[in-house]
Amino acid sequence: MEQRGPWTRHSGTTPFHTPRFQVHHDQVTGPDGRPGDYDWVQAPDQVRVAALVDGGLLIVEQHHYLGGAMWQLPGGAVDPGDADPLAAARRELAEETGYHGGTWTGHGSLLPLPGLTDCSVHLWRVERPTPGPAAPESSEADLRVLRVPLPEAAAAVREGLLRCAPSAALVLLIVEP
Amino acid sequence: MEQRGPWTRHSGTTPFHTPRFQVHHDQVTGPDGRPGDYDWVQAPDQVRVAALVDGGLLIVEQHHYLGGAMWQLPGGAVDPGDADPLAAARRELAEETGYHGGTWTGHGSLLPLPGLTDCSVHLWRVERPTPGPAAPESSEADLRVLRVPLPEAAAAVREGLLRCAPSAALVLLIVEP
Repeated sequence: MEQRGPWTRHSGTTPFHTPRFQVHHDQVTGPDGRPGDYDWVQAPDQVRVAALVDGGLLIVEQHHYLGGAMWQLPGGAVDPGDADPLAAARRELAEETGYHGGTWTGHGSLLPLPGLTDCSVHLWRVERPTPGPAAPESSEADLRVLRVPLPEAAAAVREGLLRCAPSAALVLLIVEP
Repeated sequence: MEQRGPWTRHSGTTPFHTPRFQVHHDQVTGPDGRPGDYDWVQAPDQVRVAALVDGGLLIVEQHHYLGGAMWQLPGGAVDPGDADPLAAARRELAEETGYHGGTWTGHGSLLPLPGLTDCSVHLWRVERPTPGPAAPESSEADLRVLRVPLPEAAAAVREGLLRCAPSAALVLLIVEP
Protein backbone atom coordinates (compact mmCIF):
# COMPACT_ATOMS: atom_id res chain seq x y z
CA MET A 1 0.00 0.00 0.00
CA GLU A 2 1.32 3.40 -0.92
CA GLN A 3 0.00 6.83 0.04
CA ARG A 4 0.15 9.54 -2.64
CA GLY A 5 -1.32 12.68 -1.10
CA PRO A 6 -5.08 12.02 -0.80
CA TRP A 7 -4.78 8.89 -3.02
CA THR A 8 -3.98 5.38 -1.78
CA ARG A 9 -2.52 2.79 -4.16
CA HIS A 10 -3.44 -0.70 -2.95
CA SER A 11 -2.09 -2.89 -5.76
CA GLY A 12 -1.57 -2.96 -9.48
CA THR A 13 -1.11 -5.11 -12.56
CA THR A 14 0.44 -4.48 -15.99
CA PRO A 15 -2.20 -6.00 -18.29
CA PHE A 16 -0.59 -4.90 -21.57
CA HIS A 17 2.70 -3.64 -22.91
CA THR A 18 4.34 -2.73 -26.20
CA PRO A 19 8.04 -2.05 -26.91
CA ARG A 20 7.25 1.68 -26.43
CA PHE A 21 4.94 1.80 -23.37
CA GLN A 22 3.19 -0.22 -20.66
CA VAL A 23 -0.45 -0.07 -19.53
CA HIS A 24 -1.01 -0.26 -15.77
CA HIS A 25 -4.21 -1.06 -13.91
CA ASP A 26 -4.09 0.06 -10.25
CA GLN A 27 -6.53 -0.47 -7.38
CA VAL A 28 -6.84 2.85 -5.56
CA THR A 29 -8.83 4.82 -3.03
CA GLY A 30 -9.49 8.30 -4.38
CA PRO A 31 -9.52 11.71 -2.67
CA ASP A 32 -13.22 11.22 -1.84
CA GLY A 33 -12.46 8.01 0.08
CA ARG A 34 -14.09 5.71 -2.47
CA PRO A 35 -12.34 2.62 -3.93
CA GLY A 36 -11.80 2.45 -7.68
CA ASP A 37 -9.51 1.60 -10.59
CA TYR A 38 -6.90 3.81 -12.24
CA ASP A 39 -5.67 2.85 -15.72
CA TRP A 40 -2.57 4.66 -16.91
CA VAL A 41 0.25 4.55 -19.43
CA GLN A 42 3.91 4.31 -18.43
CA ALA A 43 6.12 5.81 -21.13
CA PRO A 44 9.78 6.92 -21.05
CA ASP A 45 10.51 10.52 -20.11
CA GLN A 46 11.31 12.86 -22.97
CA VAL A 47 13.52 15.90 -23.56
CA ARG A 48 13.12 19.07 -25.64
CA VAL A 49 15.94 21.50 -26.38
CA ALA A 50 15.86 25.21 -27.20
CA ALA A 51 19.14 25.56 -29.14
CA LEU A 52 20.14 29.18 -29.77
CA VAL A 53 22.34 29.58 -32.86
CA ASP A 54 23.24 33.02 -34.26
CA GLY A 55 20.22 34.61 -32.56
CA GLY A 56 17.80 32.00 -33.94
CA LEU A 57 16.17 28.88 -32.53
CA LEU A 58 16.69 25.44 -34.12
CA ILE A 59 13.33 23.97 -35.14
CA VAL A 60 12.71 20.51 -36.58
CA GLU A 61 9.96 20.10 -39.11
CA GLN A 62 8.59 16.64 -39.81
CA HIS A 63 5.37 14.83 -40.55
CA HIS A 64 4.20 12.90 -37.48
CA TYR A 65 2.31 9.66 -38.07
CA LEU A 66 -0.37 10.68 -35.55
CA GLY A 67 -0.28 14.49 -35.62
CA GLY A 68 0.59 15.43 -39.20
CA ALA A 69 3.14 18.04 -40.29
CA MET A 70 4.43 20.25 -37.49
CA TRP A 71 7.27 22.24 -36.05
CA GLN A 72 8.84 21.05 -32.83
CA LEU A 73 11.96 21.66 -30.81
CA PRO A 74 14.65 18.97 -31.19
CA GLY A 75 14.21 16.15 -28.66
CA GLY A 76 12.78 12.71 -28.04
CA ALA A 77 12.64 9.90 -25.50
CA VAL A 78 15.23 9.31 -22.79
CA ASP A 79 16.76 5.95 -23.81
CA PRO A 80 17.94 3.26 -21.36
CA GLY A 81 21.52 4.03 -22.50
CA ASP A 82 21.29 7.71 -21.53
CA ALA A 83 22.95 8.43 -18.17
CA ASP A 84 20.37 11.16 -17.39
CA PRO A 85 17.94 13.52 -19.16
CA LEU A 86 20.76 15.96 -20.00
CA ALA A 87 22.66 13.17 -21.78
CA ALA A 88 19.47 12.35 -23.71
CA ALA A 89 19.02 16.02 -24.63
CA ARG A 90 22.61 16.27 -25.92
CA ARG A 91 22.21 13.02 -27.88
CA GLU A 92 18.87 13.98 -29.45
CA LEU A 93 20.10 17.46 -30.42
CA ALA A 94 23.19 15.97 -32.09
CA GLU A 95 21.24 13.21 -33.86
CA GLU A 96 18.54 15.51 -35.21
CA THR A 97 20.52 18.67 -35.99
CA GLY A 98 24.24 17.82 -35.77
CA TYR A 99 24.77 20.56 -33.15
CA HIS A 100 26.72 19.59 -30.02
CA GLY A 101 28.54 21.17 -27.11
CA GLY A 102 27.67 24.70 -25.99
CA THR A 103 26.41 26.02 -22.65
CA TRP A 104 23.44 24.11 -21.23
CA THR A 105 20.80 25.42 -18.77
CA GLY A 106 17.91 23.37 -17.34
CA HIS A 107 14.36 24.75 -17.45
CA GLY A 108 12.71 22.09 -15.29
CA SER A 109 10.20 19.57 -16.59
CA LEU A 110 6.54 19.46 -17.57
CA LEU A 111 3.87 16.75 -17.50
CA PRO A 112 2.21 16.54 -20.94
CA LEU A 113 -0.88 14.59 -19.78
CA PRO A 114 -0.77 14.28 -15.97
CA GLY A 115 -4.01 12.25 -15.75
CA LEU A 116 -2.99 9.64 -18.34
CA THR A 117 0.75 9.09 -18.09
CA ASP A 118 3.67 9.62 -15.72
CA CYS A 119 5.83 10.76 -18.66
CA SER A 120 7.77 13.99 -17.93
CA VAL A 121 9.38 16.17 -20.57
CA HIS A 122 12.66 17.73 -19.41
CA LEU A 123 13.42 21.14 -20.90
CA TRP A 124 16.85 22.54 -21.75
CA ARG A 125 18.36 25.60 -23.36
CA VAL A 126 21.75 25.46 -25.06
CA GLU A 127 23.68 28.50 -26.21
CA ARG A 128 26.44 28.57 -28.85
CA PRO A 129 26.46 24.84 -29.79
CA THR A 130 28.88 23.75 -32.54
CA PRO A 131 27.56 22.49 -35.90
CA GLY A 132 28.29 18.95 -37.14
CA PRO A 133 26.77 16.14 -39.18
CA ALA A 134 23.23 15.02 -38.20
CA ALA A 135 22.22 11.33 -37.90
CA PRO A 136 18.41 11.17 -37.66
CA GLU A 137 16.64 7.86 -36.93
CA SER A 138 15.10 5.99 -39.85
CA SER A 139 11.59 7.08 -38.79
CA GLU A 140 12.81 10.68 -39.07
CA ALA A 141 13.95 10.44 -42.72
CA ASP A 142 11.76 13.45 -43.60
CA LEU A 143 13.10 15.64 -40.78
CA ARG A 144 14.20 19.16 -41.79
CA VAL A 145 16.11 21.54 -39.52
CA LEU A 146 15.28 25.26 -39.66
CA ARG A 147 16.85 28.22 -37.86
CA VAL A 148 14.04 30.57 -36.92
CA PRO A 149 14.22 34.05 -35.32
CA LEU A 150 12.74 34.00 -31.80
CA PRO A 151 9.74 36.24 -32.58
CA GLU A 152 8.88 33.99 -35.55
CA ALA A 153 9.05 30.90 -33.30
CA ALA A 154 6.64 32.51 -30.82
CA ALA A 155 4.35 33.48 -33.72
CA ALA A 156 4.44 29.83 -34.89
CA VAL A 157 3.04 28.80 -31.49
CA ARG A 158 0.24 31.39 -31.72
CA GLU A 159 -0.58 30.43 -35.32
CA GLY A 160 -0.72 26.67 -34.71
CA LEU A 161 2.36 25.68 -36.70
CA LEU A 162 4.31 24.68 -33.57
CA ARG A 163 1.74 22.36 -31.93
CA CYS A 164 3.87 20.17 -29.64
CA ALA A 165 2.81 21.33 -26.15
CA PRO A 166 6.16 20.97 -24.31
CA SER A 167 7.97 22.61 -27.27
CA ALA A 168 5.43 25.47 -27.27
CA ALA A 169 5.88 26.08 -23.54
CA LEU A 170 9.69 26.08 -23.84
CA VAL A 171 9.65 28.45 -26.84
CA LEU A 172 7.48 30.90 -24.87
CA LEU A 173 9.70 30.55 -21.79
CA ILE A 174 12.79 31.35 -23.88
CA VAL A 175 11.26 34.21 -25.84
CA GLU A 176 9.96 36.05 -22.78
CA PRO A 177 12.60 35.64 -20.09
CA MET B 1 -4.40 1.75 -47.05
CA GLU B 2 -4.07 5.36 -46.00
CA GLN B 3 -1.37 7.87 -46.87
CA ARG B 4 -0.29 10.30 -44.11
CA GLY B 5 2.43 12.49 -45.58
CA PRO B 6 5.51 10.23 -45.89
CA TRP B 7 3.82 7.50 -43.78
CA THR B 8 1.55 4.75 -45.12
CA ARG B 9 -0.93 3.01 -42.80
CA HIS B 10 -1.67 -0.47 -44.14
CA SER B 11 -3.88 -1.91 -41.39
CA GLY B 12 -4.40 -1.85 -37.65
CA THR B 13 -5.79 -3.67 -34.64
CA THR B 14 -6.91 -2.52 -31.17
CA PRO B 15 -5.26 -5.12 -28.94
CA PHE B 16 -6.23 -3.50 -25.61
CA HIS B 17 -8.61 -0.94 -24.22
CA THR B 18 -9.69 0.50 -20.90
CA PRO B 19 -12.69 2.74 -20.13
CA ARG B 20 -10.32 5.74 -20.52
CA PHE B 21 -8.18 4.91 -23.59
CA GLN B 22 -7.50 2.39 -26.35
CA VAL B 23 -4.18 0.93 -27.50
CA HIS B 24 -3.74 0.62 -31.28
CA HIS B 25 -1.20 -1.47 -33.20
CA ASP B 26 -0.81 -0.32 -36.82
CA GLN B 27 1.17 -1.78 -39.71
CA VAL B 28 2.95 1.09 -41.44
CA THR B 29 5.61 2.04 -43.92
CA GLY B 30 7.76 4.82 -42.47
CA PRO B 31 9.33 7.91 -44.09
CA ASP B 32 12.44 5.85 -44.94
CA GLY B 33 10.33 3.36 -46.98
CA ARG B 34 10.73 0.51 -44.49
CA PRO B 35 7.79 -1.52 -43.12
CA GLY B 36 7.19 -1.54 -39.37
CA ASP B 37 4.72 -1.37 -36.47
CA TYR B 38 3.38 1.72 -34.73
CA ASP B 39 1.82 1.31 -31.28
CA TRP B 40 -0.15 4.29 -30.01
CA VAL B 41 -2.74 5.37 -27.46
CA GLN B 42 -6.10 6.83 -28.44
CA ALA B 43 -7.43 9.09 -25.69
CA PRO B 44 -10.20 11.72 -25.71
CA ASP B 45 -9.24 15.28 -26.54
CA GLN B 46 -8.94 17.66 -23.60
CA VAL B 47 -9.56 21.34 -22.91
CA ARG B 48 -7.78 23.94 -20.74
CA VAL B 49 -9.24 27.34 -19.89
CA ALA B 50 -7.53 30.62 -18.97
CA ALA B 51 -10.31 32.33 -17.00
CA LEU B 52 -9.59 35.99 -16.23
CA VAL B 53 -11.40 37.24 -13.12
CA ASP B 54 -10.67 40.67 -11.62
CA GLY B 55 -7.26 40.79 -13.30
CA GLY B 56 -6.27 37.33 -12.01
CA LEU B 57 -6.19 33.85 -13.53
CA LEU B 58 -8.21 30.98 -12.03
CA ILE B 59 -5.87 28.13 -11.09
CA VAL B 60 -6.87 24.71 -9.76
CA GLU B 61 -4.61 23.04 -7.26
CA GLN B 62 -4.92 19.30 -6.69
CA HIS B 63 -2.86 16.22 -6.03
CA HIS B 64 -2.66 14.06 -9.16
CA TYR B 65 -2.42 10.31 -8.67
CA LEU B 66 0.47 10.10 -11.17
CA GLY B 67 2.06 13.55 -11.00
CA GLY B 68 1.69 14.68 -7.38
CA ALA B 69 0.56 18.11 -6.20
CA MET B 70 0.40 20.75 -8.91
CA TRP B 71 -1.22 23.85 -10.27
CA GLN B 72 -3.14 23.57 -13.51
CA LEU B 73 -5.64 25.58 -15.50
CA PRO B 74 -9.25 24.36 -15.18
CA GLY B 75 -10.13 21.72 -17.78
CA GLY B 76 -10.37 18.02 -18.53
CA ALA B 77 -11.48 15.53 -21.15
CA VAL B 78 -14.04 16.24 -23.85
CA ASP B 79 -16.93 13.90 -22.95
CA PRO B 80 -19.16 12.09 -25.47
CA GLY B 81 -22.02 14.35 -24.28
CA ASP B 82 -20.15 17.56 -25.13
CA ALA B 83 -21.30 19.06 -28.45
CA ASP B 84 -17.77 20.36 -29.15
CA PRO B 85 -14.54 21.32 -27.34
CA LEU B 86 -15.98 24.74 -26.39
CA ALA B 87 -18.95 23.05 -24.69
CA ALA B 88 -16.47 20.83 -22.81
CA ALA B 89 -14.43 23.89 -21.79
CA ARG B 90 -17.55 25.67 -20.46
CA ARG B 91 -18.66 22.53 -18.60
CA GLU B 92 -15.23 21.86 -17.04
CA LEU B 93 -14.78 25.48 -15.95
CA ALA B 94 -18.24 25.48 -14.32
CA GLU B 95 -17.74 22.09 -12.62
CA GLU B 96 -14.30 22.90 -11.23
CA THR B 97 -14.67 26.58 -10.34
CA GLY B 98 -18.39 27.49 -10.57
CA TYR B 99 -17.61 30.26 -13.10
CA HIS B 100 -19.77 30.35 -16.23
CA GLY B 101 -20.67 32.69 -19.09
CA GLY B 102 -18.30 35.47 -20.11
CA THR B 103 -16.55 36.19 -23.43
CA TRP B 104 -14.75 33.19 -24.92
CA THR B 105 -11.79 33.26 -27.36
CA GLY B 106 -10.11 30.19 -28.87
CA HIS B 107 -6.31 29.81 -28.74
CA GLY B 108 -6.03 26.76 -31.00
CA SER B 109 -4.91 23.36 -29.79
CA LEU B 110 -1.69 21.57 -28.84
CA LEU B 111 -0.51 17.96 -29.01
CA PRO B 112 0.87 16.94 -25.59
CA LEU B 113 2.75 13.85 -26.84
CA PRO B 114 2.55 13.73 -30.64
CA GLY B 115 4.54 10.49 -30.95
CA LEU B 116 2.45 8.53 -28.42
CA THR B 117 -1.16 9.70 -28.66
CA ASP B 118 -3.51 11.55 -31.00
CA CYS B 119 -4.95 13.46 -28.01
CA SER B 120 -5.23 17.22 -28.63
CA VAL B 121 -5.71 19.82 -25.91
CA HIS B 122 -7.94 22.72 -27.01
CA LEU B 123 -7.10 26.07 -25.41
CA TRP B 124 -9.55 28.82 -24.48
CA ARG B 125 -9.53 32.18 -22.77
CA VAL B 126 -12.67 33.54 -21.07
CA GLU B 127 -13.04 37.08 -19.79
CA ARG B 128 -15.50 38.28 -17.17
CA PRO B 129 -17.19 34.95 -16.32
CA THR B 130 -19.87 34.97 -13.58
CA PRO B 131 -19.27 33.14 -10.26
CA GLY B 132 -21.52 30.26 -9.14
CA PRO B 133 -21.40 27.00 -7.18
CA ALA B 134 -18.74 24.45 -8.23
CA ALA B 135 -19.48 20.72 -8.65
CA PRO B 136 -16.15 18.87 -8.92
CA GLU B 137 -16.05 15.15 -9.77
CA SER B 138 -15.52 12.70 -6.93
CA SER B 139 -11.89 12.14 -7.98
CA GLU B 140 -11.36 15.89 -7.58
CA ALA B 141 -12.53 16.08 -3.95
CA ASP B 142 -9.23 17.77 -2.97
CA LEU B 143 -9.42 20.41 -5.73
CA ARG B 144 -8.83 24.02 -4.57
CA VAL B 145 -9.47 27.06 -6.76
CA LEU B 146 -7.07 30.00 -6.52
CA ARG B 147 -7.12 33.41 -8.21
CA VAL B 148 -3.55 34.29 -9.10
CA PRO B 149 -2.16 37.54 -10.59
CA LEU B 150 -0.85 36.93 -14.12
CA PRO B 151 2.85 37.56 -13.32
CA GLU B 152 2.59 35.08 -10.42
CA ALA B 153 1.06 32.47 -12.76
CA ALA B 154 3.96 32.90 -15.20
CA ALA B 155 6.42 32.66 -12.30
CA ALA B 156 4.70 29.40 -11.24
CA VAL B 157 5.52 27.95 -14.68
CA ARG B 158 9.17 29.02 -14.39
CA GLU B 159 9.46 27.69 -10.83
CA GLY B 160 7.93 24.27 -11.55
CA LEU B 161 4.70 24.71 -9.57
CA LEU B 162 2.53 24.77 -12.69
CA ARG B 163 3.81 21.61 -14.43
CA CYS B 164 0.94 20.67 -16.77
CA ALA B 165 2.43 21.33 -20.23
CA PRO B 166 -0.72 22.56 -22.05
CA SER B 167 -1.62 24.75 -19.03
CA ALA B 168 1.92 26.17 -18.97
CA ALA B 169 1.81 27.03 -22.68
CA LEU B 170 -1.59 28.72 -22.35
CA VAL B 171 -0.51 30.74 -19.28
CA LEU B 172 2.54 32.02 -21.18
CA LEU B 173 0.41 32.80 -24.26
CA ILE B 174 -2.01 34.82 -22.11
CA VAL B 175 0.62 36.62 -20.06
CA GLU B 176 2.66 37.80 -23.07
CA PRO B 177 0.15 38.71 -25.77
